[in-house]
Amino acid sequence: MATTPDPPYVAVIFTNQRTAGDDPEYDATAVRMEQLAARIPGFLGVESARAADGTGITVSYWADEEAVARWRDHPDHVESRARGRADWYAWYELRVARVERARSFAAT
Amino acid sequence: MATTPDPPYVAVIFTNQRTAGDDPEYDATAVRMEQLAARIPGFLGVESARAADGTGITVSYWADEEAVARWRDHPDHVESRARGRADWYAWYELRVARVERARSFAAT
Repeated sequence: MATTPDPPYVAVIFTNQRTAGDDPEYDATAVRMEQLAARIPGFLGVESARAADGTGITVSYWADEEAVARWRDHPDHVESRARGRADWYAWYELRVARVERARSFAAT
Repeated sequence: MATTPDPPYVAVIFTNQRTAGDDPEYDATAVRMEQLAARIPGFLGVESARAADGTGITVSYWADEEAVARWRDHPDHVESRARGRADWYAWYELRVARVERARSFAAT
């Protein structure tokens, strides 16, 4: 669960399909990118799930568009994205959205 | 992959954790809710992934806030949400966001 402040903030919705086959380098890069994102000023949190069929959704949350731009332009992230297009993703969709309201539930 | 029109449109980001144990009724309800959503005017698409650890992310896309309200207020959906809180979810977060830009990639 990503604990985010009250809206507004920015969500980057990354839905994707992995190419066939495991690749330890992909897994290592995914971990490294998550650690890198967490160090960028304005990072609020990230949530990720991948189904057995290779469909993945990662949603990262950012304080504002400036934070999203810092993440987009980080050289290590730029390099990893190029690698992702070359080797790791059959397709992806990237959507940038402004979160307007939110609510949460926790079972007692 | 959800094929959506050019922004702006609305994304409903539903991240959640299932309670332990399989429940065929949950699976049946999830399928039924997805079919129901697809019949609501203004529905644009839905993407969903659940990891082996029970973390799930579903993002549904809607033409405008009126479509989101139709989905929120549909009696079958209201009933399923109550059941979800009672039995199926350890926690969830629901965020409503306005998609401002999008891009896609497909490997050739």
